[in-house]
Amino acid sequence: MLIVQKYGGTSVGTLERINLVAKRVAKRKDEGNAIVVVVSAMSGVTNKLIDYAEFFSKNPSSRELDMLLSAGERVTSSLLAIALQELGYKAVAFSGRQAGLKTDSFHTKAKIELIDPTSINEALNDDKIVVIAGFQGVDKNGDVTTLGRGGSDLSAVAIAGAIKADLCEIYTDVDGVYTTDPRIEPRARKLDKITYDEMLELASLGAKVLQNRSVELAKKLNINLVTRSSFNENDGTLITGEKKMEGAIISGIALDRNQARVTIRNVDDKPGVAAKIFKILSTQEINVDMIIQNIGTDGVANIGFTVPENELNQTLKALSNLDDSFSVESDSNIVKVSIVGIGMKSHSGIAALAFETLAKNGINIQMISTSEIRISIIVEAKYGELAVRILHEAYELYK
Amino acid sequence: MLIVQKYGGTSVGTLERINLVAKRVAKRKDEGNAIVVVVSAMSGVTNKLIDYAEFFSKNPSSRELDMLLSAGERVTSSLLAIALQELGYKAVAFSGRQAGLKTDSFHTKAKIELIDPTSINEALNDDKIVVIAGFQGVDKNGDVTTLGRGGSDLSAVAIAGAIKADLCEIYTDVDGVYTTDPRIEPRARKLDKITYDEMLELASLGAKVLQNRSVELAKKLNINLVTRSSFNENDGTLITGEKKMEGAIISGIALDRNQARVTIRNVDDKPGVAAKIFKILSTQEINVDMIIQNIGTDGVANIGFTVPENELNQTLKALSNLDDSFSVESDSNIVKVSIVGIGMKSHSGIAALAFETLAKNGINIQMISTSEIRISIIVEAKYGELAVRILHEAYELYK
Repeated sequence: MLIVQKYGGTSVGTLERINLVAKRVAKRKDEGNAIVVVVSAMSGVTNKLIDYAEFFSKNPSSRELDMLLSAGERVTSSLLAIALQELGYKAVAFSGRQAGLKTDSFHTKAKIELIDPTSINEALNDDKIVVIAGFQGVDKNGDVTTLGRGGSDLSAVAIAGAIKADLCEIYTDVDGVYTTDPRIEPRARKLDKITYDEMLELASLGAKVLQNRSVELAKKLNINLVTRSSFNENDGTLITGEKKMEGAIISGIALDRNQARVTIRNVDDKPGVAAKIFKILSTQEINVDMIIQNIGTDGVANIGFTVPENELNQTLKALSNLDDSFSVESDSNIVKVSIVGIGMKSHSGIAALAFETLAKNGINIQMISTSEIRISIIVEAKYGELAVRILHEAYELYK
Repeated sequence: MLIVQKYGGTSVGTLERINLVAKRVAKRKDEGNAIVVVVSAMSGVTNKLIDYAEFFSKNPSSRELDMLLSAGERVTSSLLAIALQELGYKAVAFSGRQAGLKTDSFHTKAKIELIDPTSINEALNDDKIVVIAGFQGVDKNGDVTTLGRGGSDLSAVAIAGAIKADLCEIYTDVDGVYTTDPRIEPRARKLDKITYDEMLELASLGAKVLQNRSVELAKKLNINLVTRSSFNENDGTLITGEKKMEGAIISGIALDRNQARVTIRNVDDKPGVAAKIFKILSTQEINVDMIIQNIGTDGVANIGFTVPENELNQTLKALSNLDDSFSVESDSNIVKVSIVGIGMKSHSGIAALAFETLAKNGINIQMISTSEIRISIIVEAKYGELAVRILHEAYELYK
């Protein structure tokens, strides 16, 4: 198999851990696989470099910041290549540029435009293990760019696509994707398999395993992703296309504590008013979620939506600048509980079970929104963890 | 003026010092100059990275080592560019590759083959201060290379040549070139000016200010070099072509403590014998200096030479492998005192004054060798510092 592995900052956080990673890579190589490894900076390094830059400027130029930050991954990739060579393997370290990773010029949050896999393929043909500095590429001017948060995952997935890898393994410090946060529900179970869409929903709901950009790219390129821990030998979770499984309807329950609810009352129920509201929020890059508009009565309507808690003040300010006659209420003492599962597409009664379960436990539902594969419910903050546990039980996710 | 400045590791050793460097650069810019800055890694960083590599391997691959080490200068150049921008200047950071510095592929000791100054010139035309990561370039495969010891000085001189700079300022932690080591002779005086050739002699004799490779390149490219301190505003020492000065005959006295003397007795006085001896030393890359061969008597001759003290054992071993009839003696309890001055070309009596001075003070001369601009004398180690002081006095270098 042709495998791309990605090791995050914690996995390469010390020299000793880099050695363990080298042994893990070597083992996969010995099994007869061709291996490309993408590495992050050693944990703490990127933050230290940012601190350095901020010593000089509150707002350092992003071009120079990228050149600065890219040093971290270059160090890790060189060291891992040296460690592999010392174990007797042919290995070569590549920067993002040498790996052929071309991006646009939006420094610190560049998008991958193209990967020219020539150098990687040449090295693989030469039986080398290719170790690539993640998180970085080069733009058309030859300037180093970085890909933003989760950038190394993105490098790995894009490279897997470019070289048509059979598998892309993302190593972190957690075992995989769980039915819910094990700190809330000890009976949470690691999932063997999950679809891209389910993972996207769970990630956007706060599951920290993978950034959405990487999962979206894996879906687009149809890359089999595995997320697993670099600290044990446990199987991870395979993230893949539509799964053929019977029985499993719900994959997981997510809890998002960082939401606030906004309700706008007495909005004129005529075309363009809602548009005006959401346009001003969108120009300020506020991430509006769960929009609910009731059918109007007496020519006025209520509009409810949620925003991230730390964007609430900005939201209220933006709304107060609209000299309209509506009134605005907000509540940040709420949480969003979401039930995610590809199976709910073809099963009825899923939502009903959630509502019944919450009602039976005296938890009032403030807002509901649904998609094809998730149901999200806003409840008072203090009920969040209880809601997760009783829903986890109701859908028998521990099984 | 178009000025290239180079700041060594101590000068950029902390974030605070990088800020001081930024202010110094800014001042030169305000005076109406165009400025290119070449920086080393922050002091200690390169050694730390080497330690990292050696954690994995006693003999890490030089290609990966270069990629690793090059990170240090990239960090400093990014930070200095950010600091300059914060002071309100247009600045841009370039890696060695971006500065157009192309080398051969001898990793960790690459030679500069070519500098394509296009990017630097474009940035200068745009009124930018160009900050370049020293010590590094890129070979024809696109792999990062480093230039070895003193590599950042070499980057600066080569770039000064490529962009036809008026001046190349090398900032270190010393004020310039002195008539002798001030720790030996407190009356040692900083020189305003010195020729390339004198500097070459002094550098090879242990003056630590500049590596010979940089001075040789400056001579070849006819670059005016200034070496000065980044910690004060003192004028430094200008290193330039033939100086037009009256009076000053001798520029300095150097003391080299790291020499050992080897004497080979009873060498057959026929062609090829000396060649055989020095060939075996040269194949082992032993740095032989001060070769003296007396005219033979009775068909045998004596050959004396000096080698660096830490290469003495290797030298003796190499000679013992030559199954010849000669006998070898060695003495590492010696030092080399050298008198350097372009003026001695056209003045007689210089050597005689040295010999008289030493004799008057009871110092026995073991070996002598001379070039057009230097006289080197081997004396017993314990007399080294005394010899420096009395020669400094005799040639009135304190004036």
